[in-house]
This record gives sequence, C-alpha cells and structure tokens, in this order.
Amino acid sequence: MNNKYSMILGNLGNTCDRFCKGYKSNPSTEEMLQMAVKQIPFIEGIELVGTWDISPENVKDMKKRLDGYGVACSSIIPDTFTDKDFAKGSITSTVPSIRKKAVDYLSRMCEVALEIDCKIMNLWLGQDGYDYLLTADYYQEREWLKEATVKLATDFPQLRFALEYKPKEPRNFSYHARMADTILAALETNCPNVGVTMDTGHGFVAGENIADAVVLAKRAGNKLFHMHFNDNHGSWDDDMIVGSVHSVVYIELLFWLKKTGYEGWLSMDQYPYRENGVDAITESILWVKQFEGIVDKYYNELDTLITLNDAVETSRFIRGLFR
Amino acid sequence: MNNKYSMILGNLGNTCDRFCKGYKSNPSTEEMLQMAVKQIPFIEGIELVGTWDISPENVKDMKKRLDGYGVACSSIIPDTFTDKDFAKGSITSTVPSIRKKAVDYLSRMCEVALEIDCKIMNLWLGQDGYDYLLTADYYQEREWLKEATVKLATDFPQLRFALEYKPKEPRNFSYHARMADTILAALETNCPNVGVTMDTGHGFVAGENIADAVVLAKRAGNKLFHMHFNDNHGSWDDDMIVGSVHSVVYIELLFWLKKTGYEGWLSMDQYPYRENGVDAITESILWVKQFEGIVDKYYNELDTLITLNDAVETSRFIRGLFR
Amino acid sequence: MNNKYSMILGNLGNTCDRFCKGYKSNPSTEEMLQMAVKQIPFIEGIELVGTWDISPENVKDMKKRLDGYGVACSSIIPDTFTDKDFAKGSITSTVPSIRKKAVDYLSRMCEVALEIDCKIMNLWLGQDGYDYLLTADYYQEREWLKEATVKLATDFPQLRFALEYKPKEPRNFSYHARMADTILAALETNCPNVGVTMDTGHGFVAGENIADAVVLAKRAGNKLFHMHFNDNHGSWDDDMIVGSVHSVVYIELLFWLKKTGYEGWLSMDQYPYRENGVDAITESILWVKQFEGIVDKYYNELDTLITLNDAVETSRFIRGLFR
Amino acid sequence: MNNKYSMILGNLGNTCDRFCKGYKSNPSTEEMLQMAVKQIPFIEGIELVGTWDISPENVKDMKKRLDGYGVACSSIIPDTFTDKDFAKGSITSTVPSIRKKAVDYLSRMCEVALEIDCKIMNLWLGQDGYDYLLTADYYQEREWLKEATVKLATDFPQLRFALEYKPKEPRNFSYHARMADTILAALETNCPNVGVTMDTGHGFVAGENIADAVVLAKRAGNKLFHMHFNDNHGSWDDDMIVGSVHSVVYIELLFWLKKTGYEGWLSMDQYPYRENGVDAITESILWVKQFEGIVDKYYNELDTLITLNDAVETSRFIRGLFR
Repeated sequence: MNNKYSMILGNLGNTCDRFCKGYKSNPSTEEMLQMAVKQIPFIEGIELVGTWDISPENVKDMKKRLDGYGVACSSIIPDTFTDKDFAKGSITSTVPSIRKKAVDYLSRMCEVALEIDCKIMNLWLGQDGYDYLLTADYYQEREWLKEATVKLATDFPQLRFALEYKPKEPRNFSYHARMADTILAALETNCPNVGVTMDTGHGFVAGENIADAVVLAKRAGNKLFHMHFNDNHGSWDDDMIVGSVHSVVYIELLFWLKKTGYEGWLSMDQYPYRENGVDAITESILWVKQFEGIVDKYYNELDTLITLNDAVETSRFIRGLFR
Repeated sequence: MNNKYSMILGNLGNTCDRFCKGYKSNPSTEEMLQMAVKQIPFIEGIELVGTWDISPENVKDMKKRLDGYGVACSSIIPDTFTDKDFAKGSITSTVPSIRKKAVDYLSRMCEVALEIDCKIMNLWLGQDGYDYLLTADYYQEREWLKEATVKLATDFPQLRFALEYKPKEPRNFSYHARMADTILAALETNCPNVGVTMDTGHGFVAGENIADAVVLAKRAGNKLFHMHFNDNHGSWDDDMIVGSVHSVVYIELLFWLKKTGYEGWLSMDQYPYRENGVDAITESILWVKQFEGIVDKYYNELDTLITLNDAVETSRFIRGLFR
Repeated sequence: MNNKYSMILGNLGNTCDRFCKGYKSNPSTEEMLQMAVKQIPFIEGIELVGTWDISPENVKDMKKRLDGYGVACSSIIPDTFTDKDFAKGSITSTVPSIRKKAVDYLSRMCEVALEIDCKIMNLWLGQDGYDYLLTADYYQEREWLKEATVKLATDFPQLRFALEYKPKEPRNFSYHARMADTILAALETNCPNVGVTMDTGHGFVAGENIADAVVLAKRAGNKLFHMHFNDNHGSWDDDMIVGSVHSVVYIELLFWLKKTGYEGWLSMDQYPYRENGVDAITESILWVKQFEGIVDKYYNELDTLITLNDAVETSRFIRGLFR
Repeated sequence: MNNKYSMILGNLGNTCDRFCKGYKSNPSTEEMLQMAVKQIPFIEGIELVGTWDISPENVKDMKKRLDGYGVACSSIIPDTFTDKDFAKGSITSTVPSIRKKAVDYLSRMCEVALEIDCKIMNLWLGQDGYDYLLTADYYQEREWLKEATVKLATDFPQLRFALEYKPKEPRNFSYHARMADTILAALETNCPNVGVTMDTGHGFVAGENIADAVVLAKRAGNKLFHMHFNDNHGSWDDDMIVGSVHSVVYIELLFWLKKTGYEGWLSMDQYPYRENGVDAITESILWVKQFEGIVDKYYNELDTLITLNDAVETSRFIRGLFR
C-alpha cells in the first residue's frame, strides 16, 4: 500500500471532559507541530482544526512552516463544535442567521484550504443532530444539511468534502451517524466531490463491521475520501491507541482498503486523555504500520481466505500471526 | 391515518429457540388463520411465510379462504432461513447451485404472490451475511445480492420487493443491516419496485432513531414499502408486545409515518415465546391503535413541537398523555 | 410513599463537554440556590458538590441559607473528579501521596457534612477505574478502595456513605460499575454505614433492570441509601429529563422502592446541556411525581401483576395508563 | 499454569436456532465422545449435559467409557433449559410442583455426578429470569433461587456448585446475569461449595472486563469455580472460536487466572453453527494454549506492566507479540 500517514495536530494538546477541564497543559500550535514532525515517525501530513490551528490570519505563516517541515496539510477540520452559537446545530440550526454564520465560516475555511494546498475538508458536524425525541424536524434539517453541503461543494470544486460520521456525542443522535446514511447524504448532493470520512472508532460504536463499510463506500462510487484511526472498547468513542483492544478488525480493514484501491491518508485521531500524546500517537502509527505490513505480506492468502467462507481456516491464519 | 392492520400468521404458531425446541403446540395454518381473523381485532391483512403457509400447491385454496374471511394477503415472506442449504447464504451463497436454487424458489413465490393478489414480497434474507471476520468477500456477495434482486424485480414488475433489514441473527452480520444500507441496496438495483421493510425492533437493535429512519427512506424516494411492529429491550430482537418497553418512540414513529405519507400496512411481527399468541398480538394492535389515535388527535401540536427544538415543551406534552 | 424530593444544585449551572467549554453562563451558587428553592416545585433537599458548592470556608454561611429556605442538605458529593491530580484515580491512585490527598479531602468533606447536618456522603469516585487493558492491578487498587472506604466509614459513623456506581465515564471502566459489584464493595468494608447510590441512567447504561437492582440491594441488607433520577437512550449517560425515553421502567422502579421500604431521597441528577435548567429539573420532578402517583394509586394491582408472570395482563394494565 | 483442558461434549453435535431446526446432522453421544478424545488435542476432561449425555440410566456405562479414554468428567450441566415445563423458570417457577420437579431433577443429577466422580455441577439456569417488566416478583423468585441452591449444596457437600451467569437468552433478563450478582447469589447461600462459572463470551455481553471479574471472585473468597471459553462480537452470545475477535482480553484474563491462583478447568464452550465442530473446538484450544504460553513466558513483564498505569508501555508490549 502506498497510503501516507498523517495525524490530527490537536491530539497533542490538552485533553478534558465534562468533569475535568484539563488533564494536561496547553502547548501552542507551533510546539505541537514540532512534536508531530520531529518526534512521531512516518508523519507526512497534518490535519489542522479550523480556528484553533489554522485561520485566514495565520494561513500564510502555517503554509511556510509546513513547507519547511516538508509535510502536507492532509485535511482541515472546520470547528463547528466549540462555539455555543452552534449548540443546537450549525448548518442545520433552525435559526437562519446561525445557518448563515456556519456556511460563511465553512466557506472561509475552504478558502484557507485552497491557500494552503489542502485537498480535503473533513466536515465533522458534531452539533448537527438532536438529543430528544419529538424535538426536531428531521426532514427539514436534513434538507438544510444537503443545501449547505451542495453550496460548499459547488463553490469549491477543487476541494473534496469528506463527511465524518459518528453515531452520537456531542448530540445524542447525529445526522451523519453511520457509513451508509452518510453515503446517502453524499449521494443526494449529486456532487462528485462529496464523500465520507471513516473514523474506525466511530464505526465500532456504530456496530459496523468497518471493512464491510469500506465496501459500501466503494460500491457507491469510491465515496471513501479519508480515514481516521483509533480504538475503543466498543460502546463509546474512547479514542484510544490503535490495537489496544482490537486487532483482527484492523487487518481486515487494511486488506479491504487495499483491495478497493483506497489511496487517501491514514490519519491518526486519538484523544489521549491521560497519556503522553507523542507516545500514544506513535504507538498507533506503529500498530497501523504493523497491520499494513501483514496485509502486504499476506495479501494473496487473505484474498483466498475471504472466498472460502471457512472460519476455521481463517482462525488458523490469524493464530499464526502471534508469536 | 388510513393504514390498515395486518399480522404475520406464524406469530400464532409454536415458538422455539436454540435450547428449547418448542414452548407451545403446533396449530395448523388453517387454525391460525381462524384465530387471526376471528379473535384478533382490526386485522385486514395476513402475511404468509412461504413454503410453510403458502406454496404453489395450496395457493388456490388459501386465496379462497382469505377471500372468504374478507382479508388480504398483505405480504409473502419467502422462507430462505429454515433450509440448511442456505446456511451460508441464499442468493449470496458462494455456491452457484445454491444461488440458483434460491432465485428459483423466490421466483416461484413471486408467482404465488401474483396468484393470490399479494402486492408485497417481504424479503427478509436472514442467512445472507457472515459470522467471522475475514471469511467473506463482501464486494462479490453484495454483487450477487444486487443481481438476484434486480432479476426478481425485473421479472415481476407488478410486485413490490420490500427488503427487511436486521443487524444480526441468525448471522452475526446481515447484508441488509440497517435502514440506510438497505436503501443503498435498493437504490443500486435501479428498480423502482425495490424498497425497504422496517421492523421497529430491528431498528432499536440497530441503534437507529426509527422515526429518523423513516425520513431517510422518504428522502431516498419513498422507499419505505412495509412496516413490522414489535418491541424489545434495546439490545436484541426480543420480539415483544408493542409498548411493553417503549412508548414515546412509537408516537414519534407514527407521527412521521403520517407526515411522510406512508400508506402501507401496519403489520404485527412478534414472537410470543411464552405468551398466548392471540392475546399478545391483540395487545400490540391495541397499543399501535392507541398511539395512532394520539397522533391523529394531536397532529398539529406535534407538528409544531418538532420545529421548536425545545425538550422541555416536548416533555410537557408527553407527560400530559399519561393519566 | 413518603420520599422527599431533592436535586443536585449544579444541575442549574453551566454545562460543557470535551468539545464545547460552555453551553451556558455561570450562575453563582447563591443564584442557583434561589432558583432551586423558589422556582422548582417540591424541593425539600439540595445536594451540594464539594469544593464548588460547599467547603469548610462557606459551610456556616451555607447552613444559614439552607435553614433560611427551609431545605435540607440531602447529600454532599465530594469532588474527586475535576482535580487533575486525581486523573488516574483518587483513593485508588498508585501514588501514595495522591491517595493521602484524596482521603484527607474526603475527611474534610465529612466534617463539613456533620456541620451542615447532612446525613449522606454520595461518593461518586469517577476517576477510580482504568482505561486500558493490562495497565492496572485490579486487586491492589480494589484493596486501596476498600481501605479508604473503611477509614471514612469508621471515622464518621454518624454519616452514611452511598457509593454511586456508573459503568464508565470519565474512565473507560469504573471500579464501582453496577449495583451488584458496588454492593460487594460495600459488603467487604463490613461497615453498616456503607451502601449504594443508584442513578437510574447509570443503571440503564449498565444493562440492568433497575427495579431488580433495587431488590439486590434489599436482599444484601437494605444497601440502597440514595437515588439519582434522569433518563437516557440506553447506551450512554445522556442525563436527560426523566420520562423522555422510558416510562414503564420508572413505574416498576417506584413500585419496588415502595415495596422494599426505601425511605431515602428521590433526587434529580441531570445535565441539561442545551435546556433551561430550572425547566428541565421541574419536568423531571413532575414526571417522577406522576409515576409515584400511579404506584400509590394502583399499588395493589401492581402487587398482583408481579405474581402472575403474564405479559399480556401487564400490558393491558400499562396500556390503560395512557389517555 | 497447570490448568487442564476440557470441552462441552454437545459442542460437537447438531446446531440450530429459532429459524433453522438443524444446520448439521446428529451424531450420537458415543460418536461425539470419540471425536473429542481422539481428534481434539489436550482434552483431559469432558463436560456432559444432563439427560442428553448423562443420566441415571447410562452413568455406569459412561463412567467406563471415560475411564477407558482416560478423561475425567469435568462437569455436569443439568438440563433445565430444554423442557418446556421450565419455560417460565425451573427452581424459580411460581408453580410449586415445577420447582419441586426441578429440585428433584437437579438432585438426581448430583447423584449421577457422585457416581461418575465428577466434582463440579455447572448450574446454568437459563430459564430462570424474566422477559417483561412488571411480570415477576424478583424478591420472591430470588428467595426460591437461594433456597434450592442451599438445599442442593447442603445435600451434596462433596460437590461444588458453579453458577454460570449470562445476561440474557433464553430469557430477556437472567437472575444470574453477571459476575458480581452471581457472587452475591453464591454468598447469600452461606455454602462454601457454591461459586461461579465464568463464560468469557457471557462476560463480554455483560459489558464486563472479564479479568477484573476474576478479581471480584477472588476477593469474595475464591468464588471462581469453573471457566468456559468462547468469543463473540460483543453484543450477543455468538459462541465463536476463541481469538476470532478478541486477543488482548484473553491474555489479561489468563494472566489474572494465574495471578489469583485459579486451578480449575479451562473448558471450551462454543456453538459452531456452521463450522466443523472438531476443527472449531481445536482452534479454540490452540488459541487458549497460545495465550497461556504468552502469559507463562512473560509473566513477570505483565506483572510489572499492571503496576505502571501506562497505556503506552502496555501497547509496546502487546505490539511485540505480533509477528
């Protein structure tokens, strides 16, 4: 596989939850950037969170820094989740002025992306969803969701818009919840530059077999645009080190990424609440590399195994991967 | 709402699980039919399971009986799940002769449907999926799934094919798992007469908000063809009496069925392991009727509530529905 | 039932999550207190979070205020969850000085409780648990957990220590995770003044039938000391308004609280991220009151129903509670 | 570790579910026994299901056979789950004659155990629980559960009674649901010969960290009497080959079994719906052996890792176990 490795810069920053405001100290964007490119292996791209890492004000400076380090901006993740104006939705808010504010902000971030030669807008619309039953007009809000996505995708045809799905958090239900509904959301825009970001952990929480979800995206017309990696215990987005809970699932995932011709980034997205950020991201990268190595080495065996429908043969193979 | 009520005939039969072969005795199809139409209120349609309730051999006789009782055959559910030849898949089996056997069987059932004036083929492809990671070629098997569906839908344009989704059981992963992926499966056939059956309990297990799932089907082009009702505790297809666990969810569901113009059947699909079948189905029907009555009576209030995004207002309303 | 109603004061304050630092403004403790006693019906007790609402410094003043309002301090919830020193555990930290700091803090809070005539220490040890497999010595840490609990319970025999369980968040696994393991933790102290707090929502996430959990506590020797009320969608501690998702479950819960002779507080514990706090808590109280009213009115019918083992009879009864 | 390997004989038999009555053919007990001891490696014990594999009628003959093969009867699993008389409970049925029938049957099975030199009665009381809310008197039924357990444990002090927990299936809620509540059930008998069986898959479904559950049993007084091994996808008792989904979890489990001095059987309990039984059980045994080998080889490293509370160090170690 020729996929390139990347990470979300903010993974190296402070961590918090609704109980504790900060488990760590707050390094600056520049400090985190140095840590990422100098201390973490295989990094060729950096994902930047809009407003916090990248903005119209610092884009020229940031481009110079990234160029200096020889890394790309693998994606921009506009921030529609920390501003309380968007608490009940950004581009799906029932308040017209909030929807406008959201679209304007996203457009500005697209301009920033063009300036910094970033090809992918990773739209994680965390606040766009609902919490309680019988409190939202799903049809209308999904219509606004489509309209805003179409507008961005049409205004910025040079960019690829990767909709990142997650079943819940911060809302109890997200509009982009799972692979298949997010493909539907992408398809209804009729814009070829709208696709999906899979976050492995979000897929686990969604109850998906993530390799099969990759196939869904392939069948819908190469709709998998971007990949985020992390692990969890299955019921929540714990954002842990890859490989700390699951292993076979990642091997199957990487096999299908290769088989379906995925050529995008393999980007780390963790939230190391209580761990050293550099070390935790490094571990994830080394795990993904290891799984990728297994897939490269045994691609033909794996390609045969999936035609056999024989759990015993598959078990024998996997068992052989352990010392 | 003008929806008509229906039930799956087999709900009145014996029940079993992998431990106990029979919790009840085995009434005949004719006995069950009498119980359904004479003892259960509001029944205007009967869903028949292929092979067991309906076959080329008994179709004429069954038509006469249904006509005699003044009820319709609301759907036929071909049986691709009890024959061990289909243990590893029916129309997605890796064995060509099994796939052929499955398509032939399904075609015969379609002919039976035409004979009995049934408009809906409810395709619950329970064995089409997989159990273990790295044992199935999802892309190829989904291709076979599409091809067979296209063939049936093209050969029988007078029928509507409603794909019933369920995340798991009997396979650990089903190909038709949730609303959105099943819409994708329907869309990729490009056949207007292929759509989806929602089973409320399957939706709960899938982690869906089922009312929002109805909206997904609406947006994809009126793809909700059929409805199965039951309840469960959230983690498994317990197939319980409607209303025994959830209530608000059903009110929201029926509201959105009305708002999106659903005009199909409201069909009961339970599995009353240890309950009297007639009584258990009767309870479900009376519950759905009650929820439908609430929606009809308060439609305008509900239609306003969903525009407010105000959990407190919604709570006040729902609270008022209790004595 | 003669249970008294209470609430956690901080429910009226600002709300946040790991993405958004504040969905609301920050009222002062005094402002929240006024809102609680003047605007929310039936409040006879207030739960105070240690350090934030109550401390050695303000205890005299707070007592005067509560007396002035005619409400009790229903419990104190020491804060071992916001201080990053406790990020990897408070009384179960592997660092001796951190364990000492935690015990000292908890002891000070017990003294505060005595001063303010509070009978219940609600110990929600949110940081005491673990995130990753193979990173914690469960036996040793549970030993520290026991030792510290014994010390507090022995030093303050006038107080009742109610251990609040929750399966996860903020740690991926909590030591006090479910009713039964928390009863075991209470029993192994051999202190009669150590018991359990049930939070209804935590029970839902734990997969418990919460009424049956009440029975477990009864059988273990009246170990249910305190009750927190809220609702959620089943997979996460959404901390929603009571009744917004579930209803039958609460009726069964209140029935068993009455049947087992529970005489403690019925305290509201929500986290109204995007709702008006006063209104959201008021709704919960009115819902619990309504369910309590149903239980009082139909106690004998319910007491008969639970002996019948007949889902149909139970369904008929519940259906009758809806208008 | 010196644990001995065992399996449940019926794992080699026919498999079914509520849809398909038989995925396989029906070998005789004698045929299955030959397969187990001749074709599956490391088997030193056989678990026999009461009535089906072992009965007062065939006990002498079975003892001779087992002696002939040089294997022990590792446990007897009385069958209280296939007889429809027990559909709503065996020893917790509300019908006195059913409770008596259950106790009589269990007593007979205890006598059979004595005759065949079996030390462990594995009580999986699958039908003892409930399905619907407000249909069962939990307190009374748990009392009957205790009384019958006490009677058996007192009448047969030479036997160890291992209560096997499982959250659900066939009932929606089981009385023995998780490790901690089953420990409570064991403790309330006050009989030293009553303890718990852990089935790894049941623990996964219960949301437990199974290694921590082993510690709970240790702390309660060496209450872990027996172990069943299998794997699943996390939400249901899929009864799959060990290692096909999880791996780290088993390493941690075996480490804690060793650290807590568990000396019982490691017994395979699968349900290979569509797999060759001999091969599927063989795979599980080889997986457990492999994990056990890792624990034996790296015991000291693991023992240090669990004191570090450092997810990165643990990740490095685990990563090193893959080729």
